[in-house]
Amino acid sequence: MLKTAAYAAASPNAPLAPYRIERREPGPHDVLIDILYCGICHSDIHQVRDEWGGSLFPMVPGHEIVGTVARAGAGVSRWKVGDTVGIGCFIDSCRECAACREGEEQFCERGMNATYNSLERDGKTPTYGGYSTRITVDENYVLRIPEGMPLERTAPLLCAGITTYSPLRRFGIKDGDKVAVVGLGGLGHMGVKIARAMGAHVTVLSHSPGKREEALRLGANDFIATGEPDAFPKNAGRFDFILDTVSARHDYNRYLELLRRDGTMVLVGIPEPTELHAASLVLKRRQLAGSLIGGIRETQEMLDFCARHNVAADVEVIPIERVNEAYDRVVQSDVRYRFVIDIASIKET
Amino acid sequence: MLKTAAYAAASPNAPLAPYRIERREPGPHDVLIDILYCGICHSDIHQVRDEWGGSLFPMVPGHEIVGTVARAGAGVSRWKVGDTVGIGCFIDSCRECAACREGEEQFCERGMNATYNSLERDGKTPTYGGYSTRITVDENYVLRIPEGMPLERTAPLLCAGITTYSPLRRFGIKDGDKVAVVGLGGLGHMGVKIARAMGAHVTVLSHSPGKREEALRLGANDFIATGEPDAFPKNAGRFDFILDTVSARHDYNRYLELLRRDGTMVLVGIPEPTELHAASLVLKRRQLAGSLIGGIRETQEMLDFCARHNVAADVEVIPIERVNEAYDRVVQSDVRYRFVIDIASIKET
Repeated sequence: MLKTAAYAAASPNAPLAPYRIERREPGPHDVLIDILYCGICHSDIHQVRDEWGGSLFPMVPGHEIVGTVARAGAGVSRWKVGDTVGIGCFIDSCRECAACREGEEQFCERGMNATYNSLERDGKTPTYGGYSTRITVDENYVLRIPEGMPLERTAPLLCAGITTYSPLRRFGIKDGDKVAVVGLGGLGHMGVKIARAMGAHVTVLSHSPGKREEALRLGANDFIATGEPDAFPKNAGRFDFILDTVSARHDYNRYLELLRRDGTMVLVGIPEPTELHAASLVLKRRQLAGSLIGGIRETQEMLDFCARHNVAADVEVIPIERVNEAYDRVVQSDVRYRFVIDIASIKET
Repeated sequence: MLKTAAYAAASPNAPLAPYRIERREPGPHDVLIDILYCGICHSDIHQVRDEWGGSLFPMVPGHEIVGTVARAGAGVSRWKVGDTVGIGCFIDSCRECAACREGEEQFCERGMNATYNSLERDGKTPTYGGYSTRITVDENYVLRIPEGMPLERTAPLLCAGITTYSPLRRFGIKDGDKVAVVGLGGLGHMGVKIARAMGAHVTVLSHSPGKREEALRLGANDFIATGEPDAFPKNAGRFDFILDTVSARHDYNRYLELLRRDGTMVLVGIPEPTELHAASLVLKRRQLAGSLIGGIRETQEMLDFCARHNVAADVEVIPIERVNEAYDRVVQSDVRYRFVIDIASIKET
């Protein structure tokens, strides 16, 4: 086993602190990756604090991982030492169910093996994420980072990027489509960049009027402050597609009314339940859909798309010592737009 | 003007009673239709009783109309005297907006001119529906009833038929698809027949266990009594598509969980608002959509489809004198599955 320095939470109330984990020696189809950067996703915090229930401790979070191949098993054909690679939200899946066979591993019918706070395919070995210096992963769950991408700004694509890319691609967003992005956080800011790269006319909707300048700087064509009294009636029927990235409870009906006939709104967050009026859907034949990250194939497609269009996250790089402070700032939405941990700051002890 | 015998409600609390209306003399592009049958839609009752607000009185309900062309204007090219024709939920629309140009007149941006409880395109003449002996309608809002269809059983297709056909067609239901139809009333029983005619494997979901035999008799392949304790967990992920015809408040989440990954549930009723869990959509990438009747072109397509597949409604034909009693029975769901008024029973006085 490979002793590996990491940061872990010992319990829901404990801060993240230095911890030593073991990574497996790479098997014939594994690669060992030296981790360079790992993004901080809001879901890291939910899981560390056990806000969704069922958390496994000690927990080493992190599923927005970029690194370099340090060793490759004898049977590995796709990777060689020195390759720049990424790991996203899962590191394995059953590989046999319909979802896996279709390349939609995130919907694995036996449950995907998440990058952390989960178990390996053996059903007993806990998985540990990217707040650590290295990770051993099956070669089929590794992504290629296209040459020339700024690595610290690429890490968040592995979750925030694919989460927003997948529904935009799935619903065929194209040149001139009128797209609204609700919420301008880690997900929303990627949604803006990717939708713009697809040629859409993008409007950001946010309850914070102060985000107007930021939205436009990120590439949005327009901005609506949703707290203004006529924001919703004035923009009724305006959009072809709405990407709703908000995780706080909000009234879907008000946003659905902003869609044209036959328009689609996609939820990528999971807010508290809220009342839905059937009329919001029926009277203009609208659709409300959900979307969940993406499969390996689509995640690679997203990375290649972002490389082609010079899309990357806006990040604040921090050393691991500042991770607990960063968590508090994420909860207060005080980050533009993703914290990324410089893993070189994790000392081997 | 053409004096015409009808049945009308004078106010929300009044029973339907004999009434005399005037129909316009057919203009160059109008046809005058002698009405043979008119279905009783649950929405007739809602509107007569002003349960949706804004009802116009006196009201002559009825938008499931079948009759015969009695006269055609000089400029009418599509119809000749003696043709068997139908009228559905609207008798006109602006004809200029994007929806009208696309043949989706039900979504007319200036508001479709409904067959009753509405105004003509002049903005002032009230419209009167099919509980009457004749009606004058622009030739473009008239449907052709294919030869050989049983006329009294065809009338309900003009609303219940198109309401269920449209989403089944729109989402491409085809041979072998696993379709659930929620609710076995006027809409649901048409959904079963049409989905079966499209080749789907159809399961009826109803809270009334006693409807099993009926469902199978109508062509359903299977039946689920939703009141049984394990009905929902046992059938999780089973369906490709759910047609939800229920107008009473119910928990969408329980039904959404019956859809496979990427499945779609379509609402055609407008129940009271109910809580939606984002997870019901996100975790299996499902969709919840709405649908509203259909345009003229699609309604004709539906009639032709039903003729080709020998699909028609199950009806109980009544004379107009029993209309008030029929209303009470509809409210009690005591009809299999549509009352149809034999308009010959309305006497010219």
